[in-house]
Amino acid sequence: MTRERLYLFDTTLRDGQQTPGVDFSLDDKLVIMEMLDQLGLDYIEGGYPGANPTDTALFAEARPTKATFTAFGMVKRAGRSASNDPGLQDILRAKVKAICFVAKSWDYHVRVALQTTNEENLLTIKDTIESAKALGREVLLDCEHFFDGFKANPAYALEVAKTAYEAGARWVVLCDTNGGTLPPEVSEIVREVTKTVPGSHLGIHAHNDTEQAVANSLAAVLAGVRQIQGTLNGIGERCGNANLVSIIPTLVLKKEFAERFETGVTEEKLATLTHVSRAFDELLNRSPNAQAPYVGRSAFATKAGIHASAIVKEPETYEHVPPDSIGNRRRMLVSDQAGKSNLLAELARIGLAVDKSDSRLDTLLREVKEREAQGYAYDGADASFELLARRMLGTVPHYFDVQSFRVIVEQRHNALGELVTMSEAVVKVKVDDEIFINAGEGNGPVNALDVALRKDLGKYQRFIDDLELADYKVRILNGGTGATTRVLVESRDGEGNRWFTVGVSPNIVDASFQALSDSIVFKLLREEVAGAEKATPRP
Amino acid sequence: MTRERLYLFDTTLRDGQQTPGVDFSLDDKLVIMEMLDQLGLDYIEGGYPGANPTDTALFAEARPTKATFTAFGMVKRAGRSASNDPGLQDILRAKVKAICFVAKSWDYHVRVALQTTNEENLLTIKDTIESAKALGREVLLDCEHFFDGFKANPAYALEVAKTAYEAGARWVVLCDTNGGTLPPEVSEIVREVTKTVPGSHLGIHAHNDTEQAVANSLAAVLAGVRQIQGTLNGIGERCGNANLVSIIPTLVLKKEFAERFETGVTEEKLATLTHVSRAFDELLNRSPNAQAPYVGRSAFATKAGIHASAIVKEPETYEHVPPDSIGNRRRMLVSDQAGKSNLLAELARIGLAVDKSDSRLDTLLREVKEREAQGYAYDGADASFELLARRMLGTVPHYFDVQSFRVIVEQRHNALGELVTMSEAVVKVKVDDEIFINAGEGNGPVNALDVALRKDLGKYQRFIDDLELADYKVRILNGGTGATTRVLVESRDGEGNRWFTVGVSPNIVDASFQALSDSIVFKLLREEVAGAEKATPRP
Repeated sequence: MTRERLYLFDTTLRDGQQTPGVDFSLDDKLVIMEMLDQLGLDYIEGGYPGANPTDTALFAEARPTKATFTAFGMVKRAGRSASNDPGLQDILRAKVKAICFVAKSWDYHVRVALQTTNEENLLTIKDTIESAKALGREVLLDCEHFFDGFKANPAYALEVAKTAYEAGARWVVLCDTNGGTLPPEVSEIVREVTKTVPGSHLGIHAHNDTEQAVANSLAAVLAGVRQIQGTLNGIGERCGNANLVSIIPTLVLKKEFAERFETGVTEEKLATLTHVSRAFDELLNRSPNAQAPYVGRSAFATKAGIHASAIVKEPETYEHVPPDSIGNRRRMLVSDQAGKSNLLAELARIGLAVDKSDSRLDTLLREVKEREAQGYAYDGADASFELLARRMLGTVPHYFDVQSFRVIVEQRHNALGELVTMSEAVVKVKVDDEIFINAGEGNGPVNALDVALRKDLGKYQRFIDDLELADYKVRILNGGTGATTRVLVESRDGEGNRWFTVGVSPNIVDASFQALSDSIVFKLLREEVAGAEKATPRP
Repeated sequence: MTRERLYLFDTTLRDGQQTPGVDFSLDDKLVIMEMLDQLGLDYIEGGYPGANPTDTALFAEARPTKATFTAFGMVKRAGRSASNDPGLQDILRAKVKAICFVAKSWDYHVRVALQTTNEENLLTIKDTIESAKALGREVLLDCEHFFDGFKANPAYALEVAKTAYEAGARWVVLCDTNGGTLPPEVSEIVREVTKTVPGSHLGIHAHNDTEQAVANSLAAVLAGVRQIQGTLNGIGERCGNANLVSIIPTLVLKKEFAERFETGVTEEKLATLTHVSRAFDELLNRSPNAQAPYVGRSAFATKAGIHASAIVKEPETYEHVPPDSIGNRRRMLVSDQAGKSNLLAELARIGLAVDKSDSRLDTLLREVKEREAQGYAYDGADASFELLARRMLGTVPHYFDVQSFRVIVEQRHNALGELVTMSEAVVKVKVDDEIFINAGEGNGPVNALDVALRKDLGKYQRFIDDLELADYKVRILNGGTGATTRVLVESRDGEGNRWFTVGVSPNIVDASFQALSDSIVFKLLREEVAGAEKATPRP
């Protein structure tokens, strides 16, 4: 049986940027585009060319995505020719395959916000679409306030949709801009619209103001639309946009949809979804929502003892989908057994063969649990986990010993009367029997400490010369300035290797020091292992 | 037109307690019961008597709630008389008006988990309900795995529902225990069930595993059920239960429901919902979800300048419901995407009347944009924004002047040979012509600085004695340890006021200092305004 194709349109970089507190840099946007493209989405809307310098730079170059790279913008102003509208010209110049224009479809807004006539608005839509088509762009039209507009004046809302379709728009997107429409209304209105514009040319753009953006999107699909617009983790203005991370697994895994529809997200790609969702939160520097459907850390967690043993025996009768289908995993909050098998798998992955009955395994498991209770997060710090495991199994040499450090931050007026803040650090480190006292300056205490620590490690110095800090993140785990701090450091070397280390302490300098120190030890360990391999010719 | 009554059943204290990390004390439960009761819910399920000491204590006394106080428990074990089942006797002894029993309705679970026959399971349900009825209790039956059970064996699932109804259960509750059922299935199955048990005796218990617990609950109502089970803020096992905080406003405010149904939540009670939701998060010691539908801090926030001016003119065309109907408020976010109208609206809200043509407005807007480019984020720091605005308009007194500070973090071995890290700070501050040199210790550099800074501000000290830091967040804006750092501080005072301040610098100590200092100034400003008002009798 052939299945109908559903198209997934991501607007994380455009509508998602309306989220309070979210502001993507150009680099952020490029990284996220790569994530979305890898996932198999069909359209990636990058932003609004001309609206701000970041978006202008983003659209100044063609971007080599498999997905259709799309620019967003407003239709031309009423009463002006397309060629005489600088805003429109910015959008048409964008190096993209597709353009998603937004236009009013509620007559009230045409009158009050645009202060023009219904007819002029239709002409504007037609002209705009035709100018973009003439340049070879695929065109989408976001019908703003479509559902509210339809309820107020169905004939006019339909006229807008029809005008866009007839002018050659590939997709006419029905937007629930205010987010207040309920699923039964969405179904009913979409069914009406399909009598005028075929469902294969209709899209849905839902917001989460009644906590039903996912349900509205799926209801629209069942009523006929074939494109869904949404964002990663449901970010977006107010309560967010439809959450693609919840919608995609439902489309792929639930037979009501999977039997009728297919998307560009293969089962193989779906298994990366948990990673994508968490990596995106990491980029936003926020804790992933443990209760997120499908991908949350608790999404397949069981606390009740009575269920736990049954789940292990017959998971499919207690889990609505298999956790590994989206790259997530089952968590038994009361059982140590599940933990041990995870641990064994992880040790095997890093090349440490340990017998299942080795008692050091229990000690390591206990240590990991204790440390996670203190705030360590080994999920995101593979190098620190590997060091912890190797230390407990006795295979990490004692390269160096930091005997003490001191960091000073001082703010005062300098001789010119300017307020300056300076940071300096002194680290006393012992390598074999030699003591090195190193000082460093930095633009903050952690930077100064990092500089001093890596200044001279004697005979090991040459191995860490190419070590660079790629990223440094701080998360406060609870409460005020006296709270526990978790620091995550990403390091890289000259060969492009990357590794992650973690430190936890009520003292941010101390937590940073742990993570920095782990990073250096991990690098030395890796160099030594590599050196030993080079020294030992294989048979 | 008479409307049908819908009944709201809260299970925050029972199913909500399955949330990883949530564990209520008896006091917590009593406080939450009071909140739920005030809100006008119909049933409050307190827990599972006999399952743990807290719940046993909770049910040892009658609780004077207007809502029907309800105990939860399993039906009696198969092959035993009710009087000979100690678990059941614990439940029957509970001092409650109603009991909600849970029973299997999926034949697979009857066989595998209960290891009994379908017939025996029905007898068990009948006996259990009859014993509770005999003691004068109102009885509810949660049909576990009802939807999965119905899909596997509709006749048996229906038989369970029918048995419960005929045995005298006031409510037969259809549970989507695994949370994977989609709204169209819920509608269809509920409609089937109403042919056997009247909808006026049916309830829905949904979980959020596909992000559709709210949609499933509302779909069930439209298909016939008249009781909704859910939790505050949607807490619960895995991805949570249906979120009553999202469901209630939809029932009360949206005409599709409001015209047909009524609940125990009056419009007056509804206006306390934002407060209830946030107070509950406070009790759980977690930050409220800013994007929560209806009640989130961002639920009625607008970042885009193009919409802002229109919202002020005609809010009802941009807001799906009035924010104050649930005790929330509109927010115009001041950000680099904002225009002058956002700024004016925000200034008006904080009581600063500025003429639209005042040139200082442009200066302020430019300053906000420049600072946001440096990394400040005023949409999350209302107090810092207010200070910035008031400073540019010349209305912030110069309370104190920090002349210098120094922070030292030192790690070394103490006399006992233990590795210790200590942090101390010295702050030199001038108030009028007096210099105060204050020292402080802390578990980290920022904590030490905070302690020193707030130790003695002379004549202002008494105004900041009740200032507390509620939260402290750090975001590294780019790259490694030398990168720009943004610090966000949430403060509160003894009267429960909360305000947010921000600081940005490559130096985390410096950034923290800015935010801490803004917090103090804001508090002083507020105290002074309050003081001035008290001092000036109104005519």
